[in-house]
Amino acid sequence: MRKASAGMASGEEGVVERIRRVLERGGNGRLRGKFVGLGIGDDAALLRPTPGHEAVLTCDWFLEGTHFLRDKHSADSLGWKCLARAVSDVAAMGGVPRCFLLSLTVPKDLPSRWLDGFLAGLKRASEHFDCPLAGGDTTARREVLVNVAVVGEVRRGRALRRSGARLGDVIYVSGQLGEAELGLRLMRDRKGRPDLENQRIRKHLYPEPRLALGRWLGARRLVTAAMDISDGLSSDLHRLCEASNVGAAVFGPMVPAVSLTAAERSAGMDGLQMALDGGDDYELLFTVPERRQRLVPRRIEGVVVTAIGRVTKGRGVVLIGADGKSAELQPSGWDPFRKS
Amino acid sequence: MRKASAGMASGEEGVVERIRRVLERGGNGRLRGKFVGLGIGDDAALLRPTPGHEAVLTCDWFLEGTHFLRDKHSADSLGWKCLARAVSDVAAMGGVPRCFLLSLTVPKDLPSRWLDGFLAGLKRASEHFDCPLAGGDTTARREVLVNVAVVGEVRRGRALRRSGARLGDVIYVSGQLGEAELGLRLMRDRKGRPDLENQRIRKHLYPEPRLALGRWLGARRLVTAAMDISDGLSSDLHRLCEASNVGAAVFGPMVPAVSLTAAERSAGMDGLQMALDGGDDYELLFTVPERRQRLVPRRIEGVVVTAIGRVTKGRGVVLIGADGKSAELQPSGWDPFRKS
Repeated sequence: MRKASAGMASGEEGVVERIRRVLERGGNGRLRGKFVGLGIGDDAALLRPTPGHEAVLTCDWFLEGTHFLRDKHSADSLGWKCLARAVSDVAAMGGVPRCFLLSLTVPKDLPSRWLDGFLAGLKRASEHFDCPLAGGDTTARREVLVNVAVVGEVRRGRALRRSGARLGDVIYVSGQLGEAELGLRLMRDRKGRPDLENQRIRKHLYPEPRLALGRWLGARRLVTAAMDISDGLSSDLHRLCEASNVGAAVFGPMVPAVSLTAAERSAGMDGLQMALDGGDDYELLFTVPERRQRLVPRRIEGVVVTAIGRVTKGRGVVLIGADGKSAELQPSGWDPFRKS
Repeated sequence: MRKASAGMASGEEGVVERIRRVLERGGNGRLRGKFVGLGIGDDAALLRPTPGHEAVLTCDWFLEGTHFLRDKHSADSLGWKCLARAVSDVAAMGGVPRCFLLSLTVPKDLPSRWLDGFLAGLKRASEHFDCPLAGGDTTARREVLVNVAVVGEVRRGRALRRSGARLGDVIYVSGQLGEAELGLRLMRDRKGRPDLENQRIRKHLYPEPRLALGRWLGARRLVTAAMDISDGLSSDLHRLCEASNVGAAVFGPMVPAVSLTAAERSAGMDGLQMALDGGDDYELLFTVPERRQRLVPRRIEGVVVTAIGRVTKGRGVVLIGADGKSAELQPSGWDPFRKS
């Protein structure tokens, strides 16, 4: 018989126990008791569906080297962001997050400090989104790999989908686009710790999925199609159009692009381009029939929403400039498969 | 504007479209229409819970270099096994699988042939387990990484758990243990393609989760605790005992160990050791109160079940030999965190 490893701090039970200690005994006891009937530590979690609701199910990769750099991003921000990204998909469906599964790989020699930081950020996100940990899988690997699956709920028949946009609908986005992209660039250019006072850097590191906005939209049946903007407006609007089998025209001057300082502009940055192609904003993109647009306030649940264009016939997306000239808008947001 | 990549075969839509084509338009249309209200292509999947049931939620890593070798394991077997592993957790809860999410990373230069093989094996498993694809996430990465999340259902209050074993309960296992470990060794030692006529190699490559057995046990309230054996009996029995706050005594000669040929034995292989520490069997381990053991037939849903020991007071697991001597049974199954 080989020597036991279950008791070792680096044994599987060691990492799992740490996750349990930090995340299970948090402020979520109340919520866990309601939806999560059985959490971490069994073969699977048991969930108790709310009558009259459908379950919303989504998962997201968050991988070292692909989605983050361990030497650039703080462990705390990675913990927050891995959950926020997946919760954003639930927001885009108009749903309420209920619980999540954490799949995590960590190097055997990972400093405890890093894991503690990661779990602290994750715990804050879990409490902030009322989304307790229900289970997961942990293994050893030379890199930190994360996959988060979130289960949410939405009232039956009320989920927002990508596929219902119709000719003439008004296209809206929430927030200011390109902020997270600017935050990423500012962080990259700066040595040392990221400046968390800078709102753009915060938006890149600690995104805030638009849960309240999604629920507001879902409750009112205003919306024909909706999704979140995670890879960049130019790519995500193409996806919405493909799912709805329509095209779109975007009016460039109406896009709520991140505002740049004179110094940033003279450094060659382009606010509109960042708004169109920048990733990680986690704002919502949605369409509303023309005759109902008077029912859309300027600000919903504290977030500004802006009309940026119209749904058109056919396929493809065009961008119309201030001079009235139009050009095809290519999907140029984040694409891991792009050959560079 | 940069050049579009959405239409390229290697673009994200390329891989996603391929997954959709193979897995969405399979023989699962009927099932998808019932439980999965909205599948691949939106921000999240929508599921319609069955009244009177709880949801069972589980996820499993399946990583190149950690769980499989791309040059040793066929793509077809990896497609089957990544789903079978996660479905086994649902079997262990006495549940019925309903749908799964596939998180997949593939190298940009992955041969189409490999992806086709992987999806073919996955599709067969999906049909075999009546478990359609509901969504997922795909990205590019230099290695093949897989994470599968499965949603199942179980009648409310009927789920089998790890935590209910009580003093004096009889401990059972299904099938023959160590077969998958022997299959792995036979496959490693042999050059060229694996011999799929060999039942042990098949068990390593194409495990068959004990869904019917789990449902049978769940329906009869015979069982005080249950789990699947994925890392090896010695490790998994420790987990069951910890969850139940009990100990266990295993009678070595009663363990249904893989039977070895004379040649295999003289090559130094030890059937009992493989049965105790070998991984990937995906058999079930369960406990039954002594007074109810007469209700456990020798064979359930076509699978032999064998009593191997008793639940004891205190903590720890002992192995009792044919000579009546007992020794502590250390958890020596598969542990990714073991320092080697």
